[in-house]
Amino acid sequence: MSFFMINPLEALKEYIRFPSVSTDPAYADAMVGAREYASGLLEQLGFSVEVVQTDLHPIILAERLGDPAWPHVVIYGHYDVQPADPFELWTSDAFEPTVRDGRIYGRGTADNKGPTIVHMAALSRVLAEHPELPINLTYVIEGEEEIGSPSMPKFFDQYAERLSKADFILVSDTGSPNTEQIVITTALRGLVDLEIKVRGAKVDLHSGIHGGAVYNPLVALTEICASLHNPDGSVNVPGFYDDVLPVLDWEREELKRYPETVESYQAMLDVPAFYPANGLSPLEAVRFGPTLEFNGIGGGYQGEGSKTVIPKEAFAKITCRLVANQDAQKTQDQVVAAIEARCPKGVSLHVRRGPVAEAYLVVPPERPNTPANQPESLARAFKSADSAIENSFGHPPIYLREGGSIPVIADFSKRAGLDALMVGLFTPLDNLHAPDEGFDLGLMENAISAFERIFKDIAGV
Amino acid sequence: MSFFMINPLEALKEYIRFPSVSTDPAYADAMVGAREYASGLLEQLGFSVEVVQTDLHPIILAERLGDPAWPHVVIYGHYDVQPADPFELWTSDAFEPTVRDGRIYGRGTADNKGPTIVHMAALSRVLAEHPELPINLTYVIEGEEEIGSPSMPKFFDQYAERLSKADFILVSDTGSPNTEQIVITTALRGLVDLEIKVRGAKVDLHSGIHGGAVYNPLVALTEICASLHNPDGSVNVPGFYDDVLPVLDWEREELKRYPETVESYQAMLDVPAFYPANGLSPLEAVRFGPTLEFNGIGGGYQGEGSKTVIPKEAFAKITCRLVANQDAQKTQDQVVAAIEARCPKGVSLHVRRGPVAEAYLVVPPERPNTPANQPESLARAFKSADSAIENSFGHPPIYLREGGSIPVIADFSKRAGLDALMVGLFTPLDNLHAPDEGFDLGLMENAISAFERIFKDIAGV
Repeated sequence: MSFFMINPLEALKEYIRFPSVSTDPAYADAMVGAREYASGLLEQLGFSVEVVQTDLHPIILAERLGDPAWPHVVIYGHYDVQPADPFELWTSDAFEPTVRDGRIYGRGTADNKGPTIVHMAALSRVLAEHPELPINLTYVIEGEEEIGSPSMPKFFDQYAERLSKADFILVSDTGSPNTEQIVITTALRGLVDLEIKVRGAKVDLHSGIHGGAVYNPLVALTEICASLHNPDGSVNVPGFYDDVLPVLDWEREELKRYPETVESYQAMLDVPAFYPANGLSPLEAVRFGPTLEFNGIGGGYQGEGSKTVIPKEAFAKITCRLVANQDAQKTQDQVVAAIEARCPKGVSLHVRRGPVAEAYLVVPPERPNTPANQPESLARAFKSADSAIENSFGHPPIYLREGGSIPVIADFSKRAGLDALMVGLFTPLDNLHAPDEGFDLGLMENAISAFERIFKDIAGV
Repeated sequence: MSFFMINPLEALKEYIRFPSVSTDPAYADAMVGAREYASGLLEQLGFSVEVVQTDLHPIILAERLGDPAWPHVVIYGHYDVQPADPFELWTSDAFEPTVRDGRIYGRGTADNKGPTIVHMAALSRVLAEHPELPINLTYVIEGEEEIGSPSMPKFFDQYAERLSKADFILVSDTGSPNTEQIVITTALRGLVDLEIKVRGAKVDLHSGIHGGAVYNPLVALTEICASLHNPDGSVNVPGFYDDVLPVLDWEREELKRYPETVESYQAMLDVPAFYPANGLSPLEAVRFGPTLEFNGIGGGYQGEGSKTVIPKEAFAKITCRLVANQDAQKTQDQVVAAIEARCPKGVSLHVRRGPVAEAYLVVPPERPNTPANQPESLARAFKSADSAIENSFGHPPIYLREGGSIPVIADFSKRAGLDALMVGLFTPLDNLHAPDEGFDLGLMENAISAFERIFKDIAGV
């Protein structure tokens, strides 16, 4: 048989040229183009490709199945990208990929088209050498990741059972600190979203005529908000920390290998001081601790100067980041209950419950808390990744929890029983979601060689 | 000599037809027109008119002086009006005065052109009867009241000494509860303006990547704001109440005559509950108590739905209403000091000090707290107003402190030593600063007859 070899740089350039912005209907044609391009690569690699229709952008479901006894890996990615505006801040065209100084620039190079091409290029090399590679592979490449994966729940309704026959999922949609030091992400935080509105009088009131008689909704709102943290910065919501698992020593040890200090982190953020809660260091707090944050607060006069008004209402947008074992719905209930209990009777409270997403945790093999029933193939993949990454990058990976959230990963676990091997391929230099998004070509080549080794090890060839 | 008689309705109509919107340069011609119209009326009444130039709209300074031994009254008013938009909410043209059901509608009818015509029409009747009326009169009619009277401090620099030769000022730029019950305003609250900004990192941060390490500026802001009130609603700023004078029994008794109950007030505002501090009733609190209010708070994401950001900064716009004897500058210093002391070190604080204005209090004659040195002519005017209002309106006036602020009145007192007789001529039905501003023609006629009596009593004729 003839071998289909993917030239990673050329393939990535072609993939980037489709401006597959999922949030903007003006790019509908490019969404189709990017999907067909990725599907085409998979077909040429021997996959049978199914296009799963959704309410918006279809999901690519591609399979290369052989003996059911073979290890079975699901590879997850997304073919959509963030909008590229403001375009004028790009050094070169966002959708005409350009190589400068060993990096390729363009929207989607790092998030997530580059990593997708890494996996596919590695596969093409392995399959060229071992056309009958004894490994079952399923690709799930969605087109709505950048808009919150709204179609994935329905997808799981339909396909969770089929997916559950696999052993684990492979994902490269997380980060590493630099091009030399790869992180294998072991956890993602969950997310709870809600908005509260506090209402007073039916119209804005003159603060001279009515000031002193009524509960100013801004006063009530700030009092409610201020009550949600303790003076030490911890969250003051009954039960909030009940289910939080302790951080284990091995996790703290891994973090010590992370090439960032509290000092360098503070200089980067340019904050006067850090404020971590519960005895965690700042670097620990963003990974191991749950949070309750106000993302937006507004009410009353927002313009220049002053206006002597008692506003009729005020709002706060609140999100919590949850860590492993916290239940997202339960946490939302706890926060809402605390707010309701603390709302003064001079105003009325209106709560909008937004979506919730569970936190996710996977434990690498041979740790004190590794589950006894961890699939052998996942353990093998972790071990393979460890040595393959050390071989290709010169340093073994760091195993680290991540502060961000990728809700679909917890869904793969919850709905299909699949844990995730998450190999971080983008770095802080890659400007995700920002102008001049880029991807390091050296990292790309090293990652391809690492994944060659990983796929071979999983297959046992 | 021939008598110049003012037909109040026709004069008011003509005055209203000049759309003298001080804030909008497009109405500059109308500002001139209104000023010349008011000046013309005064000239025809025998005043010598001086036009005092300012940086924006000149001030009318008109005098009718005779024997220095005569009583001397300064009458204060303003010829500018609020903008009339949204025009489509007016039943009839805002600047084409229209009479419906015993009321005249048009921008400025109540604030302040109607009351100005009341005074002038009363004077024209008295002067027709007593051409040599033994009373010295000075008019100060400014053109920048609706934009905060920015030229008045300079005016006082220039004219305070001349004005200080008068006995008191007469003002009708306050309100009464309805057309039957007139209020003589005995106090105005002062005003302190400031804005605080709390800054964290130099850019908005991703709440997943950085949440838990930093002091969210919105958390810091709500904690600072929440600290500024005690649980009982009183202001939690050291020294804030130190100089507040106690409310006297006679003031509480006057308020009992006010035709509004706590129940009717609550129904009007449609609030779930009142929240007055310091043991005051809601009706007392808006008149007798100082406040600290948040007029606007903002920071972070303000749009629909959620955005998981830790904002780089957040602001709060704060004003205090002060009562008699509180020092405005001292109070601003106290509030700023409290905020500075409470700002956590994880963020930086930036304070914009806005303008301050002193509270004002005048005590009618024969009260327990009437100053011993009250000018005899002011005492006579108060007593005359009491019986003249009872005669014309059927009820004696109520003597009441007012929650709003007219900084220029305190300036007349502070700069020129003149106390104020403030007879409220607009009512809640008059829609000040709103569409369908109007003025009651029955009240206008009763007020003219009351002021005829008052001018005569002051002159002793």
